[in-house]
Amino acid sequence: SSLCLSKEVMLKSSPADLVTETDQRVEKILISAIRDKYPQHKFIGEESVAAGERLELSDSPTWIIDPIDGTVNFVHRFPFVAISIAFAVNKQTEFGIVYSCVEDKLYCAQRGGGAFLNGEPLHASGQEDISRCLVVTEIGAERDDLALSTMTSNIFRLLKLPVHGVRALGTAAVDMCQVATGGADAYYHIGMHCWDIAASALIVQEAGGVVMDTDGSQFDMMSRKVIAASSSAVANRIAQVVQAFPCRLEGTFSNI
Amino acid sequence: SSLCLSKEVMLKSSPADLVTETDQRVEKILISAIRDKYPQHKFIGEESVAAGERLELSDSPTWIIDPIDGTVNFVHRFPFVAISIAFAVNKQTEFGIVYSCVEDKLYCAQRGGGAFLNGEPLHASGQEDISRCLVVTEIGAERDDLALSTMTSNIFRLLKLPVHGVRALGTAAVDMCQVATGGADAYYHIGMHCWDIAASALIVQEAGGVVMDTDGSQFDMMSRKVIAASSSAVANRIAQVVQAFPCRLEGTFSNI
Repeated sequence: SSLCLSKEVMLKSSPADLVTETDQRVEKILISAIRDKYPQHKFIGEESVAAGERLELSDSPTWIIDPIDGTVNFVHRFPFVAISIAFAVNKQTEFGIVYSCVEDKLYCAQRGGGAFLNGEPLHASGQEDISRCLVVTEIGAERDDLALSTMTSNIFRLLKLPVHGVRALGTAAVDMCQVATGGADAYYHIGMHCWDIAASALIVQEAGGVVMDTDGSQFDMMSRKVIAASSSAVANRIAQVVQAFPCRLEGTFSNI
Repeated sequence: SSLCLSKEVMLKSSPADLVTETDQRVEKILISAIRDKYPQHKFIGEESVAAGERLELSDSPTWIIDPIDGTVNFVHRFPFVAISIAFAVNKQTEFGIVYSCVEDKLYCAQRGGGAFLNGEPLHASGQEDISRCLVVTEIGAERDDLALSTMTSNIFRLLKLPVHGVRALGTAAVDMCQVATGGADAYYHIGMHCWDIAASALIVQEAGGVVMDTDGSQFDMMSRKVIAASSSAVANRIAQVVQAFPCRLEGTFSNI
């Protein structure tokens, strides 16, 4: 890590939506290296979108990149930050990589080829009983009353089921990979972006887990809502309990 | 780790209050090794208390032990579990050790001698502005409506201040050590036990942080309530926002 990591902080959509020069720099390094090799490919990058690029997932080969997932952690030196890279063709993710940098954990999956952590195969827990589940989630950067009250009441209702507990590491990509390892049984998130979870969704599926929308419908990485779980039973139970708050769909705004 | 780690789970006070044979075994190993060397010393151990031993902090030299902090994580293989050991004389902690086993991180502090992580000195962030704070907390094992609604509304009010975010690793000892590293700016917890935080409270103080009761009064490890923070300003602001729910004081019951 001879990269000089700048933590100079700028704000995006809210006082909790941070970006640093390092986010922007890492994204540029990744995109320019890939573009050199694959000049026809398209890119969806968190910072490019923040800078005004159009967010559109087409059928073209597309790289979906979060240069630093967990920017708030990065700014604070809370030791969970990740680089997330997914590659999709015909809107289907073909492979995904999540590198949890401080932990030095490399999660990866190829469609049909299984999921791995530092080369070791990953298996979701298979847990079907919600009352024995460890659940991971994130509050995210939304700070309006409706979003916050929905999120805290979701946590209340889950704990009442009960579940064993609720955890939050501060990076959606790494949180979701915990379901792939079997260390957690479920993850849900409302308000995240496609670059946060495109790679880890495939990693969970390839580890034998289930990914769906929080309303119980098919997973759509552009819907801003996701449940990842050890089993359909657990995913469906969480879909019954968790309420969403309105988020603008990906691509319906030019600048977050 | 040639120890055969049994994850056979038993329940204590609630469906989320788990204990394993390993908790009990690690505590017995620790206490018997220390007692061999210091036969006059007293012990407060989570599992001894659960088994009916009296919980009393006297002026005698006393070892305060949590054999596995983060038992729910341990059962799930969520990778944050710690051994916490504190040594108190005249009710004052003289040294404290928190070993985060999976991460292989050893936090320690001696009163007046500073705090260290794997030998490197620790410094709290010194942050004084609550709106720039990363806050760690735990929901714990309580599942009654009053406890849950108090805890989720505490999170709501903190996020509204706003704070940068809320995290939860699932072990009070390791959570609190994040404040000592400067990676988080504050930790608060209502309902924890003395063995969860006796060691990490000293580690935070020796790293330059502040520890107090959630009502703003002096820290008392037997009060079931704690704030650890980067500064008095942040600790006091959290004390204004966070409400407690009734917990029985340590030592007022023979068996949790």
